[in-house]
Amino acid sequence: MMLKYDKVALEIEQSIEHKQLKAGSQLSNIEELIAFYQVSRSTILKALDKLQSRGIIYQVQGSGIFVRKRKKEGYMNFLENHGFSSDLKLEQRKPVLVQLEIIKPNAEIIENLNCQLEDEIYKVERVHFLEGKCYCYETSYYNKMIIPYLNKEICEGSIFNYIKNSFNIQIGFSDKYLQVGCLPKQAAGYLDLTENDPGLFVTEIFYAHSGIAFDYSKTVYHYQNTHFFVQSQLS
Amino acid sequence: MMLKYDKVALEIEQSIEHKQLKAGSQLSNIEELIAFYQVSRSTILKALDKLQSRGIIYQVQGSGIFVRKRKKEGYMNFLENHGFSSDLKLEQRKPVLVQLEIIKPNAEIIENLNCQLEDEIYKVERVHFLEGKCYCYETSYYNKMIIPYLNKEICEGSIFNYIKNSFNIQIGFSDKYLQVGCLPKQAAGYLDLTENDPGLFVTEIFYAHSGIAFDYSKTVYHYQNTHFFVQSQLS
Repeated sequence: MMLKYDKVALEIEQSIEHKQLKAGSQLSNIEELIAFYQVSRSTILKALDKLQSRGIIYQVQGSGIFVRKRKKEGYMNFLENHGFSSDLKLEQRKPVLVQLEIIKPNAEIIENLNCQLEDEIYKVERVHFLEGKCYCYETSYYNKMIIPYLNKEICEGSIFNYIKNSFNIQIGFSDKYLQVGCLPKQAAGYLDLTENDPGLFVTEIFYAHSGIAFDYSKTVYHYQNTHFFVQSQLS
Repeated sequence: MMLKYDKVALEIEQSIEHKQLKAGSQLSNIEELIAFYQVSRSTILKALDKLQSRGIIYQVQGSGIFVRKRKKEGYMNFLENHGFSSDLKLEQRKPVLVQLEIIKPNAEIIENLNCQLEDEIYKVERVHFLEGKCYCYETSYYNKMIIPYLNKEICEGSIFNYIKNSFNIQIGFSDKYLQVGCLPKQAAGYLDLTENDPGLFVTEIFYAHSGIAFDYSKTVYHYQNTHFFVQSQLS
């Protein structure tokens, strides 16, 4: 179920998109928003905080609420789900499963998934496409204790949606580590590039709301097909 | 002047660091924090929200407040000031000024700084070092209408600190665009690398609290000397 302020935040966001408001456009003030959405002041304040932290608006004390710059065409939001912005339709980004197997964890997986040597781990290798262009090669690890079942069909869709719907695991937050390097031969092959071409290497640990690490992923992004967008809140 | 909840947030963060609390450690509950810091509930809630959005803690409804994983040694926070995390001491990261000049803006600068063709623009080229290692080559543009004065000495320190102290401009937020590519000859030279080595190219627009764009920067990061850390709040 959606919280009331999430619903209001979404409606404000949709209204900004619908009206195609430019960066710097001023929104209605708080009193007007309260009257329009017929909710409490605290619901409006929470909705605005959410929109601000998501980079949709900025608030200037004593002056008003303004629209932030929209992301450029073709750029993916680096802070959202795996880089797959919610505005990308699912059919445009159907992954190709390279391999699905159950393995025993090595030290790196044990550390990052906080699991035991005797645990069984799903290892999922996939290549992701966006509008027909391959943009990343991803290897993900899931602890079978937490995600008891995966199959080919599930891995050819959104594993996160499956996890959410089947096990009621809400994705809470993630830690990403990134660096740039040269592609090893195997990754280059999957990305249809040449060995030693440049690549963005991202290691990410996804946590449920409860704080449990449920997904440890290593992703290599195609340097020509991927452009990222990040909005920072500096203060 | 520091807001009360910022002060409490900082004290909680320092206490986590001081006690070297591990990921998953539970903090005192809200009632205990209110009693300990002798502030209102709303101040504690705001401080916790700030710590959560900065990736220091996570809150589990009905369960408590927990410490998030700390960043790995040597990784820079990608969402903080230019990637220069506040925990890096200034003397460790003194930039070398390559060139400082006043130019007329081209179309790209006009679009990103939202300035006029007749405006004068400071162009600052610098190489940044961290513990003796060169880690980025940066070209920044400042509108002289907003930042009326820059000199060699200022550019060899923190321009952001100077701007904050001299013009009372508070840095509010930024838009970053990133992609990976091959180094052109000039950037490779400054980074002590070879032409066509891989690099992370980041374009960033910095806005004041008021929403005015005051800095447009293009930065190339050294692929061997830079490791980034990003914490996402996914929900």
